[in-house]
Amino acid sequence: MSNCSNCPSKGTCSSSTKESCAIENNPKNNISKIIGIMSGKGGVGKSTVTALIANELAKEGYSVGILDADITGPSIPRLMGVKDAKAMSDGKNIYPVVNSNGIKLMSINLMMDDENEPVIWRGPILGGVVKQFYSDVIWGELDYLLIDMPPGTGDVALTVMQSIPISGTVMVSIPQDLVSMIVAKAVNMAKKMNIPVYGVVENMSYIECPDCGKKIKLFEGEETDSFMKKHNLELLGEFPMSKAIIDITQNGVSETDEKISSIVSSIISKIK
Amino acid sequence: MSNCSNCPSKGTCSSSTKESCAIENNPKNNISKIIGIMSGKGGVGKSTVTALIANELAKEGYSVGILDADITGPSIPRLMGVKDAKAMSDGKNIYPVVNSNGIKLMSINLMMDDENEPVIWRGPILGGVVKQFYSDVIWGELDYLLIDMPPGTGDVALTVMQSIPISGTVMVSIPQDLVSMIVAKAVNMAKKMNIPVYGVVENMSYIECPDCGKKIKLFEGEETDSFMKKHNLELLGEFPMSKAIIDITQNGVSETDEKISSIVSSIISKIK
Repeated sequence: MSNCSNCPSKGTCSSSTKESCAIENNPKNNISKIIGIMSGKGGVGKSTVTALIANELAKEGYSVGILDADITGPSIPRLMGVKDAKAMSDGKNIYPVVNSNGIKLMSINLMMDDENEPVIWRGPILGGVVKQFYSDVIWGELDYLLIDMPPGTGDVALTVMQSIPISGTVMVSIPQDLVSMIVAKAVNMAKKMNIPVYGVVENMSYIECPDCGKKIKLFEGEETDSFMKKHNLELLGEFPMSKAIIDITQNGVSETDEKISSIVSSIISKIK
Repeated sequence: MSNCSNCPSKGTCSSSTKESCAIENNPKNNISKIIGIMSGKGGVGKSTVTALIANELAKEGYSVGILDADITGPSIPRLMGVKDAKAMSDGKNIYPVVNSNGIKLMSINLMMDDENEPVIWRGPILGGVVKQFYSDVIWGELDYLLIDMPPGTGDVALTVMQSIPISGTVMVSIPQDLVSMIVAKAVNMAKKMNIPVYGVVENMSYIECPDCGKKIKLFEGEETDSFMKKHNLELLGEFPMSKAIIDITQNGVSETDEKISSIVSSIISKIK
């Protein structure tokens, strides 16, 4: 079996031989589509958006996996309700942890005895781990593999874009000029690597006062619209900073309210 | 002149010879104290806290510099009101940009034609740039050099801790269990590298509704207290998510209200 036969980029990629391609597809895996959730900036909600999309896809009946590429700041195990689980390995294959919604998960914290231990590694090692998470993990049959990218445009982002056949990226931002500037760096990086950007998910758009119902806009970014226009980007959806979303970060993603669910559903329709 | 004569760690470090030390001190610089502002997690407000501390120190009459070590997500030029300025170099020395409050600044965005351009470099190169920002920049006489660290515990954090003589670090966190876990990684990293942690600045503690004045707690982290106790850390100060602080990220740090100023002042008294 050639390396291309089970590659998510089969038929759409420009490499015609295994030799001209940096990707190692595991013959035990058959992944239809790989989506990178990216931002450039930390703390804007990449992992939360990844978790919400994964859950909604699973609810719609798709088989879903999440590869947590944020090796030095992994959030996925807590968000997916498996913070005490451990991934197993037989020395060659690594088996993902499967959560209560049937979502397959791989994260460095699933391989550590103590989640508080830091991972103090140089970039090429970090990139190597992410490659292993793609090539050595037995993902099996997946409709969607979501990759939760680390902040920044350094080693790991570069490795993911160069060596994993991702179909496209979703950019997560917040309505703040400073953040738009840094997200623009990530958008420009994706363009340089010829990876499509599906569009932008805006997070923390506003907060609703639980007493008087007032919508408080936390940020007053003026550049967001011009940023979207300049980069020819579609707004995929907007999330408020609501208790329902914050609860996810405390208690995992299993319960989300209907309003959030309908926003996620609309985002998914644009990236399928 | 030996490499130790103008080292901020002179007299407190264990290296007795230049050969056993990885630090290159520029003979043109004389820096009294270097403080790293760290978190492990992105988006919690490291750069904002750095900017607030720098401004307050300058107001108190100290000479201050900021080294923006977040090469792939640099926020300092915008926060310090110099986003269109450029740093000059004569081929050997690099001259920092000085803002209207006399604070000396170095950031990768001060060396780029377009701030939206991404820096797509492998970790060792990123680390090399940060070392240059310490060794090749003419900081001159400084009472305090603040280092705004990137998120994560990867290359750049490692390089800063190994090759710049920092006196101690301030950890920035938000009251969210998921974040405490990641900040714990950074605290453990500092401990492994024998660098003192002065304490924790908690950001985004609450938001005040501008209509009814209700204090809305965005996060309900239960682990923050136990996290502080477990790691024997002092709480240096708490910032609300207030318009005064958010304005800084839009308009730079020159104007802050009195309440914020008194919180910063109290933090500074603990790290001097």
